[in-house]
Amino acid sequence: MKVTPSYHVSFVGAGNVAYHLATSLKRAGLTIDEVCSPNRANRNSLAKAVDAQAPETLLNLTPISDFYIIAVPDDKIESVVNAMPEVNGIVAHTSGITPMQTISNRFKSSGVFYPLQTFSKQRTIAMNTVPFCIEGNTKQVETSLTQLAGTLSQSIHYINSNQRKELHLAAVFVSNFTNYLYQAGETLLNDQKLPFELLIPLIEEVAAKVKTLSPSVAQTGPARRNDKNTLKTHVEMLHTHPGLKSLYQLITSQIINQYHE
Amino acid sequence: MKVTPSYHVSFVGAGNVAYHLATSLKRAGLTIDEVCSPNRANRNSLAKAVDAQAPETLLNLTPISDFYIIAVPDDKIESVVNAMPEVNGIVAHTSGITPMQTISNRFKSSGVFYPLQTFSKQRTIAMNTVPFCIEGNTKQVETSLTQLAGTLSQSIHYINSNQRKELHLAAVFVSNFTNYLYQAGETLLNDQKLPFELLIPLIEEVAAKVKTLSPSVAQTGPARRNDKNTLKTHVEMLHTHPGLKSLYQLITSQIINQYHE
Repeated sequence: MKVTPSYHVSFVGAGNVAYHLATSLKRAGLTIDEVCSPNRANRNSLAKAVDAQAPETLLNLTPISDFYIIAVPDDKIESVVNAMPEVNGIVAHTSGITPMQTISNRFKSSGVFYPLQTFSKQRTIAMNTVPFCIEGNTKQVETSLTQLAGTLSQSIHYINSNQRKELHLAAVFVSNFTNYLYQAGETLLNDQKLPFELLIPLIEEVAAKVKTLSPSVAQTGPARRNDKNTLKTHVEMLHTHPGLKSLYQLITSQIINQYHE
Repeated sequence: MKVTPSYHVSFVGAGNVAYHLATSLKRAGLTIDEVCSPNRANRNSLAKAVDAQAPETLLNLTPISDFYIIAVPDDKIESVVNAMPEVNGIVAHTSGITPMQTISNRFKSSGVFYPLQTFSKQRTIAMNTVPFCIEGNTKQVETSLTQLAGTLSQSIHYINSNQRKELHLAAVFVSNFTNYLYQAGETLLNDQKLPFELLIPLIEEVAAKVKTLSPSVAQTGPARRNDKNTLKTHVEMLHTHPGLKSLYQLITSQIINQYHE
């Protein structure tokens, strides 16, 4: 039988990441003590959802929790760390790109609790498959953060700050940039008054394929075949979309280089 | 009760598209008469799988089928059309980029039967959700091709040759180019000896998100926020991968242009 640790957790930040983590931890049976954020609406609504106090400023944060999760924009982490009161619990941020040191400079028990997923309020996430990337400034902190992550997910990984930075960069390519390619598809279909939905089964299959096949093996298409007639036709078709034309030419030349040079 | 039409279908070509269409039609209860291909291994194995004859050359094709589906590489379609014997059935190709005219120049009943999906022999496709893009040189041909597609899928669309060309280009962006971004992610993770699998839940969520949200609304990330510190760090990290660096810079500048200019 799985025993859920009776941890108390507080959050600094009340945006998408804080929202998903706090509500999931609450559902897993943990106690959320406080949610602190300068954004009054977010703070109150999240505090209400997880039955927590909602101090407005960091000065009012009560030092009673086992964990303080800092889930704020990257460029705000350092100032949050400096403005926090003394606490005995573990202080961890959720950022892909920020080194652990930003926290361990100040707090004796510090770490990173980085969920590798994209969160938005409109969507429910299957938290049990989200990879949690853990780092701690001591073995004990790592063990505690692993137990915390274990209340949510089966996918837990020790990742140092350098690896995490690279993982975050890779995530930009496969998520933000991929979404931009979906936008390109939507733009082209709009030109012909075709619905974007036509592309959905293809988008899903391309994503599903790399679960079992390395993307370097899964690569197909006119650039992969170096099919010069199709490539020429496509570039001509893109003359009214100079941005997408540059993008087409750049990716095509890289694929041709990879497979045909 | 759904009545499956008792159509007879022959295939020219025995590659991935022919394989998936022929085996699916056979499973749906239709008769596959012949599979013709110069590739002996493919031709015999597909013919065996669907209980069909396997003529080696187009001259030996028997003109007894209701449909002749030409599923060969784009640059071979015209020569196949010219080398086929006279037939009374409907002759249709499965190409995204080839105009219907390539067939209707010669055959009186001609059309297009384009499944908008990526096929590989290793993977099973849920054929009933694949969008079939139909075009016919007469209303009657369109009706017949719709009935044929209806034995496989619930997603059937009349798409003219111009629209289909655009759809095919959009598909290159959301499938081939997206897979190239997955490759980029794999390359970066390899550098840090991290497994590509870490990115799978993210890849799946990004693909799932655009089922309910337009990709222009779903866009997130450092470029979307114009987070200059992160963008600068990422570009510096990519100095050992000049190709990925150019790609990062190009897509980032386009996203910033779209949301911040």
